[in-house]
Amino acid sequence: MPAGTVLHALRAFVAEREWAQFHTPENLAKSISIEAGELLECFQWGGDYNADDLRGELADVLTYCILLADNLGLDADEIVLDKLARTRAKYPVEKSRGRSAKYDEL
Amino acid sequence: MPAGTVLHALRAFVAEREWAQFHTPENLAKSISIEAGELLECFQWGGDYNADDLRGELADVLTYCILLADNLGLDADEIVLDKLARTRAKYPVEKSRGRSAKYDEL
Amino acid sequence: MPAGTVLHALRAFVAEREWAQFHTPENLAKSISIEAGELLECFQWGGDYNADDLRGELADVLTYCILLADNLGLDADEIVLDKLARTRAKYPVEKSRGRSAKYDEL
Amino acid sequence: MPAGTVLHALRAFVAEREWAQFHTPENLAKSISIEAGELLECFQWGGDYNADDLRGELADVLTYCILLADNLGLDADEIVLDKLARTRAKYPVEKSRGRSAKYDEL
Repeated sequence: MPAGTVLHALRAFVAEREWAQFHTPENLAKSISIEAGELLECFQWGGDYNADDLRGELADVLTYCILLADNLGLDADEIVLDKLARTRAKYPVEKSRGRSAKYDEL
Repeated sequence: MPAGTVLHALRAFVAEREWAQFHTPENLAKSISIEAGELLECFQWGGDYNADDLRGELADVLTYCILLADNLGLDADEIVLDKLARTRAKYPVEKSRGRSAKYDEL
Repeated sequence: MPAGTVLHALRAFVAEREWAQFHTPENLAKSISIEAGELLECFQWGGDYNADDLRGELADVLTYCILLADNLGLDADEIVLDKLARTRAKYPVEKSRGRSAKYDEL
Repeated sequence: MPAGTVLHALRAFVAEREWAQFHTPENLAKSISIEAGELLECFQWGGDYNADDLRGELADVLTYCILLADNLGLDADEIVLDKLARTRAKYPVEKSRGRSAKYDEL
């Protein structure tokens, strides 16, 4: 789909409902945590999951992340790539290959 | 940037480090909750925030969301739009305009 | 230890630092989510854990829970027992024995 | 109420339902995060809250915390007091009075 399609659809959804008034950065950050908890509930008692539930909960987390980025005037793709560059530096391939240790324990 | 740029960069990052073995859907869902908590910490005592910290923490949540979608064979844009269609139905404009109530309280 | 020892120690700790001003119910609820994320980080990549880290993170979640109960004028033991009575009704032994399903799927 | 009343009631509740098999430390840690998200939902759009909902959600977080402590062979009161001693050292009164800054920014 054309770049920006999702963002435009979300902006229209929010504008039609006059919900921007509720979407402070703090409220969106809380919403991301709340939805992340619902996503985690798909795995509360183990690794098996209901694919439809999981898909819907992941969509909810993503939705609030995109809204928060937009609210802050940030481009979601850009901040992910910027952070990735920093994470690459913290986790050099030769030290981190095949290991799940945190960077301060490598 | 071209569509898929972020996804390809994340896949290469993971492949170089042989981290796919750690990226079960369950572990990625936990990681999303953990990073959502760090994002929320930017607002622990109120609405003011450090813009650099916030940007970095939001990027971390987004990164694990994109990895989980990819792991499940899902397109992130597509699941957000699908969920939006369902949310539109649950929150009709005439009932939800200017209100933050949940759909079952409208 | 005598009943109330922990509560009195926490109250004194907060009072000495004049931190009650930051401890709104909302801020304490956010703090519980933030600390729950740090607790979860002990299990980010699997079931093994560092016992000291886990103990400290669990203590942090408990601390904010006790402070929130106190802030709301609630007795922590009492609300747990009240909720347990309701959960017993939702999960009758004969239907829920040996099953992790939610009450609406029993 | 007598010390240990809550713990004994929770243990009986779990034993009757044969749920100990689901209560690994990891699953209990996930459960704490999930319930913390539901608690946070009481404040999703601001500081006002429904007192009954809040009380019930706080009870759920506390319940899983008590179960996790018990599962690990820990005394909940003791680990809170131990952590408090360490937190006192990190936040000396003279440096932290009236400030919400983290210890590494004092």
